[in-house]
Amino acid sequence: MLNSDLLRRAQERLDSLTKPRGSLGELEEIAKRLFAIYADLNREISSKGIFVLAGDHGITEEGVSAYPQEVTRQMILNFVEGGAAISVLARSLDAKLFVADFGVIGPNFSNSIGRELYSRPGREHSSLPTVLDCKIAEGTRNFLREDAMTKGEALEAIQSGRDLLESLHAENKFDLIALGEMGIGNSTSAAAMTAAFAGVSVEKITGRGTGLKDDALKNKISIIEKSLAARKPDSKNPVEVLSKFGGYEIAGLTGIYLAASDLKIPCVIDGLISGAAALVAARIQPQSRNYFFASHLSEEPGHKVILDELKLHPILHGRLRLGEASGAALALPIIQNAWKLFREMATFESAGVSGKN
Amino acid sequence: MLNSDLLRRAQERLDSLTKPRGSLGELEEIAKRLFAIYADLNREISSKGIFVLAGDHGITEEGVSAYPQEVTRQMILNFVEGGAAISVLARSLDAKLFVADFGVIGPNFSNSIGRELYSRPGREHSSLPTVLDCKIAEGTRNFLREDAMTKGEALEAIQSGRDLLESLHAENKFDLIALGEMGIGNSTSAAAMTAAFAGVSVEKITGRGTGLKDDALKNKISIIEKSLAARKPDSKNPVEVLSKFGGYEIAGLTGIYLAASDLKIPCVIDGLISGAAALVAARIQPQSRNYFFASHLSEEPGHKVILDELKLHPILHGRLRLGEASGAALALPIIQNAWKLFREMATFESAGVSGKN
Repeated sequence: MLNSDLLRRAQERLDSLTKPRGSLGELEEIAKRLFAIYADLNREISSKGIFVLAGDHGITEEGVSAYPQEVTRQMILNFVEGGAAISVLARSLDAKLFVADFGVIGPNFSNSIGRELYSRPGREHSSLPTVLDCKIAEGTRNFLREDAMTKGEALEAIQSGRDLLESLHAENKFDLIALGEMGIGNSTSAAAMTAAFAGVSVEKITGRGTGLKDDALKNKISIIEKSLAARKPDSKNPVEVLSKFGGYEIAGLTGIYLAASDLKIPCVIDGLISGAAALVAARIQPQSRNYFFASHLSEEPGHKVILDELKLHPILHGRLRLGEASGAALALPIIQNAWKLFREMATFESAGVSGKN
Repeated sequence: MLNSDLLRRAQERLDSLTKPRGSLGELEEIAKRLFAIYADLNREISSKGIFVLAGDHGITEEGVSAYPQEVTRQMILNFVEGGAAISVLARSLDAKLFVADFGVIGPNFSNSIGRELYSRPGREHSSLPTVLDCKIAEGTRNFLREDAMTKGEALEAIQSGRDLLESLHAENKFDLIALGEMGIGNSTSAAAMTAAFAGVSVEKITGRGTGLKDDALKNKISIIEKSLAARKPDSKNPVEVLSKFGGYEIAGLTGIYLAASDLKIPCVIDGLISGAAALVAARIQPQSRNYFFASHLSEEPGHKVILDELKLHPILHGRLRLGEASGAALALPIIQNAWKLFREMATFESAGVSGKN
């Protein structure tokens, strides 16, 4: 639990600031939790990290995505070259972007990135961008036919996510992080996990991902239903659900969420897949939830189910469905401003403003 | 109407960027309209203005607010001293804050601000902050008994708002502005206007303002119902509705909205009161609506009615109910990021990413 004395002191401060009580709504809840985490009114949110973990998914064999599998790899290059949505947002928000390969098909980027990015004339760069190598395997298995990962692989990916945040935090001293992903097929993976955890019908949880038409959506729902029947997950066992349906990038995110709570770093959930990883973390270690902040409400219907399970309220309702931590990134200024308001507003007393009648 | 060729070109560009079509949701709609307004992909959003217009309201005699009337004046001093929520947000967002007195009870601030702010020892400052003087009168009349303003006063306040934006724009060349207000009693005023315009029941439109309890809310509803019956507004006549129930600050905001559309400056609506002023502007000059951007969905129930009338979708759902342009200010980074994404993202072709199956 967050420190109840700090939460109480935060509420007292909020109620003393020159605004009607509670009139900053969710921003007050955000500020209160940040104070309980930071335990220091002088803390500034200056070091922000955005993590995008990537992996491929065997379930794409079943035609569950509107885009071909190779897009996972192509988009990673786009992330580090600066052309993807999250690249633009990271620059705009003055946040550091960390892109990590947890299970993309193909060689490790560190060995191949020069060839892949700059094989064409005129594109030779002096310094190459970095994709962090955390690859567990080249894509998961098709969970309609077998478990996506072994339990050992899932645990290895969780540990790798933990290690990644710990080492980067030692260097960057993060005040706030945002977590997202890339992986063609992973909305199918996350929807299956969410259905297993929440016991809600697959139809209510499954969305169009990158843009499925009606027939393809029906197919996606049917594949998930058949997979749940075939894999028979124990909903009380988070690592089992993760290994049966998840992905290496999802498991890696779970590790980051767990490490963030150990390191007391507030972390912002993006959409369905990032949310499914947070749910696994909260099932493994319930108090980790105290460090999670919702950002947006995705167009993917399973996202609301996850946020309800986590008892979190998304502040952005923008019909976003991109992933890549884009929704979480867009919420960073709101969270920063909630904290600034808490720190910098005058009190009724200091400003000489009359109180309520 | 916005230029249809520019809107079409914006959509083509959006569909060429490395993301599933439409996956940035409302941000794509924002970017599209900004392109049709700016007509220039190289335009940057650098000069941002936040306008807070203030006025007092005769209807406060009827006990419709949880705070005493003097808070209007006290909060203006808090705005310019830097301690109010909007002061913190303006600093954080690198926006210029303009605070204008359109009808506050008491003397013009330019004559009195030194005495009011720095009468106490230790508070003498070398330079005094500015409250712009646009005062039409010291507070409106009680609209339960008579029209809040004469038509002449309402038109004068509208013109004064127009003049204000025009002169400040000449100096500041705004790329984006956010509009808000301060005025104890003005949620009653705006609710009455909204009920008159939309023909929705007063009960469905009226909220708790700065924090009324159940009994006081019942009183507020009853006062508005009686006032509507007594004033008999012609809902097709926007200036009549405005003069019967509005306030000087609301009329001033209407003028700013109208001038913004003439000057092609996108402007961001805040909550109920700022929205009611936008609705008046759109009723006077329907195409002005093309320059309006929604920010948040307020806790005040009338706000949704207004945004529906304006066919605008708020992106922030934060249970905010503060006013002061605070919700509009919080949306500025989202709008700026929507524009940056539109300008800076790579295309499928330039990034070598495969398209849809």
